[in-house]
This record gives sequence, C-alpha cells and structure tokens, in this order.
Amino acid sequence: MLKAVEEIQEALGEDAVSMDETDLESHAYSEWSTSNAETAPIAVVRPLSTEQVSVIAKICTKYRVPMVPYGAGSSVEGNFSAPYSGICIDLSAMDKIVAFHPEDMDVVVQPGVSWVALNEKIKDTGLFLPLDPSPTATIGGMVSTNCSGTNAMRYGTMKDYVLSMTVVLADGSVIRTRHRPRKTSAGYNLNSIFTGSEGTLGIITEVTVKLAVLPTNFGAATATFPTVKHAALAASQMIRKGAPLAALELMDEVQMRVINMNGGTGGKSWAELPTLFIKFSGSEHTINDGIESAQEAARQYQCQGFEFANTDAEIQSLWSARKEALWSCLAVRPEGTEIWSTDVAVPISKMADLIDQSKARAGKLGLFNTVLGHVGDGNFHQAIMYNPAKEDEKKAVEECVEAMMQQALVFEGTVSQECLVKELGPATIGVMKALKETLDPQSVKLGAYNLIT
Amino acid sequence: MLKAVEEIQEALGEDAVSMDETDLESHAYSEWSTSNAETAPIAVVRPLSTEQVSVIAKICTKYRVPMVPYGAGSSVEGNFSAPYSGICIDLSAMDKIVAFHPEDMDVVVQPGVSWVALNEKIKDTGLFLPLDPSPTATIGGMVSTNCSGTNAMRYGTMKDYVLSMTVVLADGSVIRTRHRPRKTSAGYNLNSIFTGSEGTLGIITEVTVKLAVLPTNFGAATATFPTVKHAALAASQMIRKGAPLAALELMDEVQMRVINMNGGTGGKSWAELPTLFIKFSGSEHTINDGIESAQEAARQYQCQGFEFANTDAEIQSLWSARKEALWSCLAVRPEGTEIWSTDVAVPISKMADLIDQSKARAGKLGLFNTVLGHVGDGNFHQAIMYNPAKEDEKKAVEECVEAMMQQALVFEGTVSQECLVKELGPATIGVMKALKETLDPQSVKLGAYNLIT
Repeated sequence: MLKAVEEIQEALGEDAVSMDETDLESHAYSEWSTSNAETAPIAVVRPLSTEQVSVIAKICTKYRVPMVPYGAGSSVEGNFSAPYSGICIDLSAMDKIVAFHPEDMDVVVQPGVSWVALNEKIKDTGLFLPLDPSPTATIGGMVSTNCSGTNAMRYGTMKDYVLSMTVVLADGSVIRTRHRPRKTSAGYNLNSIFTGSEGTLGIITEVTVKLAVLPTNFGAATATFPTVKHAALAASQMIRKGAPLAALELMDEVQMRVINMNGGTGGKSWAELPTLFIKFSGSEHTINDGIESAQEAARQYQCQGFEFANTDAEIQSLWSARKEALWSCLAVRPEGTEIWSTDVAVPISKMADLIDQSKARAGKLGLFNTVLGHVGDGNFHQAIMYNPAKEDEKKAVEECVEAMMQQALVFEGTVSQECLVKELGPATIGVMKALKETLDPQSVKLGAYNLIT
Repeated sequence: MLKAVEEIQEALGEDAVSMDETDLESHAYSEWSTSNAETAPIAVVRPLSTEQVSVIAKICTKYRVPMVPYGAGSSVEGNFSAPYSGICIDLSAMDKIVAFHPEDMDVVVQPGVSWVALNEKIKDTGLFLPLDPSPTATIGGMVSTNCSGTNAMRYGTMKDYVLSMTVVLADGSVIRTRHRPRKTSAGYNLNSIFTGSEGTLGIITEVTVKLAVLPTNFGAATATFPTVKHAALAASQMIRKGAPLAALELMDEVQMRVINMNGGTGGKSWAELPTLFIKFSGSEHTINDGIESAQEAARQYQCQGFEFANTDAEIQSLWSARKEALWSCLAVRPEGTEIWSTDVAVPISKMADLIDQSKARAGKLGLFNTVLGHVGDGNFHQAIMYNPAKEDEKKAVEECVEAMMQQALVFEGTVSQECLVKELGPATIGVMKALKETLDPQSVKLGAYNLIT
C-alpha cells in the first residue's frame, strides 16, 4: 500500500496526498453513519481532474490497493467507510461547474460541486437541481448513492436527473456514458448502472445533470391525526386522488415530542400527535388545489388540526420541524446512547401496518424510538435509541430490526444491503456479482464495501 | 436448428410451435420497420409461462440456436427481426394480469398484456399506465424498447414505470430484479439494464409496473408559426417557463400538407404551417394555467393562430392530426416509394437548427420529407420518401441521413445504433459489450441484433 501512496505522490505532487491522522479518521468515521468500519484508509488523495483519478486507479490496480471514492461524507449508510483500508479518493477539490446550458436546462459539473452552491449560483435563470439531500452533499455523492430527499415525491430521485457521466473504471480506463440529449434509448443504459452503485463499479469524475424549472410559488401545511395509521391512510388518499403535492412526510408522536423536548422550533411548541408535513409548489392555482385536496383527504381520517402557510417565513417555520428531525434526535439522546436508524420501503398500502407493528415491538421492549416517513414512496426510517454498552438493550434493538426486516420482506418490500440475498435470491445476486466482476475484473476492491454482499 | 424445434415441441406440445410460412414471415417483416432483415425465423414458439420460456431458452442454448423475443411487432426499428434466423419467441399468449394492487398503484402483468386493454380494464379505479406508444403494443415490448410516446413529456418513458420484472436469461435461468416497493437503491439497478435492452440481455416474462392517477380534465391546443424555428423556440419558451403541459409535439408545414392531402381530419382542413400540438391535463385551474402560459409563449414567436379545445370531442378532433401523422404519410406516398424514418435527439436548443438544416438538405436534393418532433425532449423524426429502385434517390437519401447524423453528433446528440461507436467511442462500447457477454456468456444470439454493434 505504501508503495502505491508513494507513486501517487510522485505523479500528483505532495500536496495531493495526506496521511494526517485526523484527516484519515474524518474520512473513515461519522457520528451519523449506521455502518462505520473499524479500519481507516492509509491515505487521503485529492485529485483535481479525471486524468488524475485515472492515474490513481492505475496505480491502485497495479498494487491491488482498495480505493474508496469520497464525496462529502454526509451519507448515513457508511458508503465512504474503508473496511479494507486502502486509499480514500476525496473528490471534493473537483468542484468546478464545467458548462452551464440554461437553454438546454442542463449543467455539466465535477463531482465535488455542492448542490446548494449550484442552486444558489443559477437561481436567477429560474432553474434548479430539485433533489434535497443533506445540505453538505456534493453531486458526485448524490449520484453514487442515487440520493433522494423530501422532494422525491414530486421530482423523483437522482437517477432521473443524470444525463451523462464520465467514469473512471477500476483499471483506470475512462468512459463517457452518453451524449447530452434529454432522451435516448440507444445502447445499454450505463447511467443507471453507475448511479446508485456507491462507487463500487467506477469513480464518477464528471456529470451532466438535468435541471428543473424553479417554481415561483410555494406553500406548506401540517395535519395531525390520532394514530400513525390514520395519518398514513390520509397520505395514501392524497396520492390516490392525484393531489398536486411537492412533498409529503410523516413524523410520529414521539418524533414530535423530541422536537418539543429540544425547545420546539422558533419558539413554537407542536402538538404531540402523528403529523403529516406537506409541501406545495407551482402556480397559485395549483397550490390552492393542492391545499384543498389535502385538507379534504385529511378530514376523512379524523384530522385533528390542519395548518397551512404561504408566506416564506411561515413556510420556513412550518417546515422547520421536519428539517430538524435528525438533529433533534441526536441532541436529546442520553449520554452513551446510539441511534440505530433503519431504512425500509414497502408497497404504500403496507406502510401503516409495518410502522404500527415496529413501534409496538420497540415499545414493548422498552426502547425509545421515533418514526419518520417519506409516505409518498412507502419509505420510512425508524430510529431506535440504545446503549451499546448494555448487552440487553443491544440484543433488544437487534431483535426489533430483524423482525421489522422479516416483515418488510413478507410485505414485498426492500430493506438494506444486509438482507439483499434474502430479498432477491441467489440467482439475482449472481447477476449483480457478475456485473461487478465485469467492471472490476481484477477485483481491486473499489468502493466502501461490496454493495451486493 | 430443427432439433431444437423438435425438442421444444416435445416439451411444450405441438400447438405451441408454428412453422407456417405466413406466420414466419409476419414475425420477420413489417411495412413500418426501418430495418427489416432478409431472413426469417424457422419457427415461432408461443409459450404460456415463465417456466416454458426457460425451457425454450435452455434448449436453444444447448443447440446454439438464436432466439428473438417478439411482442406485438409494432416497433419501427426492427427490434423483432431475425437476422440470424433461429426461433422467434412470441409472448403474445402470455396476456394475463397477474395481480392488480390499486391501493399500491401498481399492477403485475405478463408481457403480452396490451396497454390499451389494461387501461380500459382499470379505468374505474382512476389509475392508468400513462405511456402512449402504438395502440397495438404490449407491455413486454414497451419495456424491452423503453418506449416513449406523446405523453413522455409529462410522464417520462417506460423505464420510469418498471418496479420489478422476472427475466429469463439466455441460459434459461430465471431472475426477479427486485420486490414491489416504489423506491429502492439496494443493489445494482437491474431493472434499468433490462429495460430498453431490446431482448438482447434476457426475455421479460413478468413485469410489475407503476400506475399514475388518471387526470379528470383534459385540454388541447394547436399553435401555428411562420417557420419551424419559431415553433421550436416557442416550445422551448413554454418548457423554460414551467408551463404545466401534458404533451408538446411539432409537425412541419409539409406534414400538415400531407394531412390535408389525405382529406384532413374529420372534414377539417389545416393551415399548412409549422404547428405545435399541445395537450393539457389536471384540474381545471391547471389546464387554464397551461393554456395561458402556452399562448403567451406562442405570441412571443409570431404565432399565426392559436386554437384550443376542452370538450372531449373537440380535443379528439384537434389531436387527431397528430395521431394520424404516420398513417397519412404511408397513405399518400407514391407507388414504389419507401419511407426512411430517422430518430434523433439533441439538446433542446439545437433542435430547431438541426431540423432547419435537415429540411434544407433534403429539399435541395429534391426529396419529399416531413418532420415530426417531440419538442419537449429535443427528439424528432424526419421521414424521407424515396424510391429504392432509383439509385440516385437512394444515394440522396443516404447522404441526407448521414449528414444529419454527423451534425447531431456535433450537437452532442444521440442517433441510432448504427452510429453508436462514433457517438460514444470504443471504451464505452467495450463496457456495453462486456455486459452483453456477462449475461450471455455462451454467446447464444439473443435478441434481434446486437444492440451495441
């Protein structure tokens, strides 16, 4: 490994390589990641161009050194951890906007460009990249993880915005997936193979992303319900009626209590009831249509209170509780406690039952837990607090998570990587493995871990 | 090959296999396909289940017999031709709706299910599959070709509706790509590898497709312009302003003349000017917003006439010219003439120029040609009529097509398979070939032709 580091230093210059302890640690571990590895990379390399990434890959392949591409480190799923050590390729210095084509509604960027900075820069053109992950995320990482966020309901996920990319393969060869038109079916869909592959199939060094038209008007609403089931059913009804919503999120009564425990938001104290957070955007008419149909659906399921906002400040205030959810959980947990955060998606009609069962199970075992759901997609997170030093708590949380995953599979849902074989069966996993081998024939360990094992 | 046919007959029964001449021919050739092969399959097999398809694949692999999956034969790009002969696997008898989940907004179907029949059957639930290809198309073929249609602007293409599929690989093994939730990022995105791969990577035997909410109100409008450039610029403006449109299509003045030559539509004679065809759907407010912003954008580019319709009958009548375009071209062409239909997509801002240049070139060479564009995507078709018996006409049309493709590549666009190497370069094609080899390691010829060569 050290030989590879030396060779990279020679090729890219001393400044491109860091072996500083703090640097290594910060690239291997995060407080919010659910799967931190015990190991760390031996060096962090900061390339400035596709060519430099290609040089790094060639050297790593030559010495069989694992490579882990690194974006902003904001992922909650350990996509940047280094379980086999090796070299961390930090792409944050590749942060140039290469070309902006407002007339084609697309932009070509290096992977280190922040989506927040991009949107700020182009806002006067009336365009934006409508994903909404962590505010620190960079576009390379967003593509690698096929990121989502509260805007996914209206705008889809990152895969729907990738027009083309430049990828450095494990052996250092460079490919461009396609040209820049908005539609194509020629050849195989390489964009979608690399998007979401978490750096295990190649290193993304340039992306052309589609942009959307920035809405001119926004609105927000919250609706409270007696039970999570009522809230989930109301959400389904809104979707089935085709209400023009921009986002639809659910927080359970415990999550709302946590927000209050944390001082509320801007002085506001919230009703501690299962709550739907709804966003609207578009013309004034569209927003009014949306509010009307959302309210009508909410009424059918014993809505306890429906509040809406249409000035920027009011919207900000109403939506802030949703934005603060993760941080308020981190803030209120007792000393020594960790959060086990799950990520499960099931067909929409099964979500309320699965949340109900999961909450009941954790409650019975005495575990403090909160639920936050992207109800528009049938996707939710249950965050369970536990003290890893206490064997019984650790066992209880494992029991909860295992039971939830089993039930999610019964409901034809999808869980995390760990259960992928159970979910899809060995034949399908075999195809995924074959793809990995095809693109990494020398089996250099590329990516934090093998996505499919 | 005959041995394979015999074995299939033994396994599936006599009735499943046809060697009837007319049957073979109708599965190898169509009047509307631009790339008919000289050869035909030696047998057409009609399986009834995934298991039967697997048996066929195993036998074909054993005897190294090419296999060509066949849907409805409505493709204009020869996806079902049999250039290496072999066995045609006609999936039209697998036409069952396996499971309908209105509460999850999805449906599980066999590949032979017609999208028109499906939508008719489920319309009372307020859901529909919003693609809009040929009315005869079946869902298996729609997935295999990643079909599009006039609704693509609002609803996307087929790839955006595939939740999961069962695929029989070349060697007969069966995989299911994933479970049924609406969102997932676990593992590699196999759905998108098989979608659009035109049967060259596997045979789709079951698909779970997402459904959309059927709008309750519709509207349609047409706008005429002095030149194609004005029409294309107005279209861009509508898109850039975020006008809520359901479809946005362009037909040039020649195409409009062809409609009139063919008797107009329902007695209506059309202005022979470049015309935008616009569809609206949603709430009444959304439709009014759409019409207003479309009209405003049209005005800025010397719109000559703007008509709109909001009763079903009026919409039908206004939209019928667009629907009739292909058939009216076929109807008016002189005896002995064929139509060379191209399919090109470029970044939106380049479309007007490319259409202008392509029309001028064909005109100068004395070729009758029409243009029809999906302007929302920068995708258009130029149909050039020529007599293949006349060497000079054949040469002229080849010259036109070649020049247009070259220019499309300069504009960073995408053309057809033929030019894929020029478009993407050998490294990218190498990755596509490696994928093909991975999924078809014994290199049985699966699919009409190799998509990537």
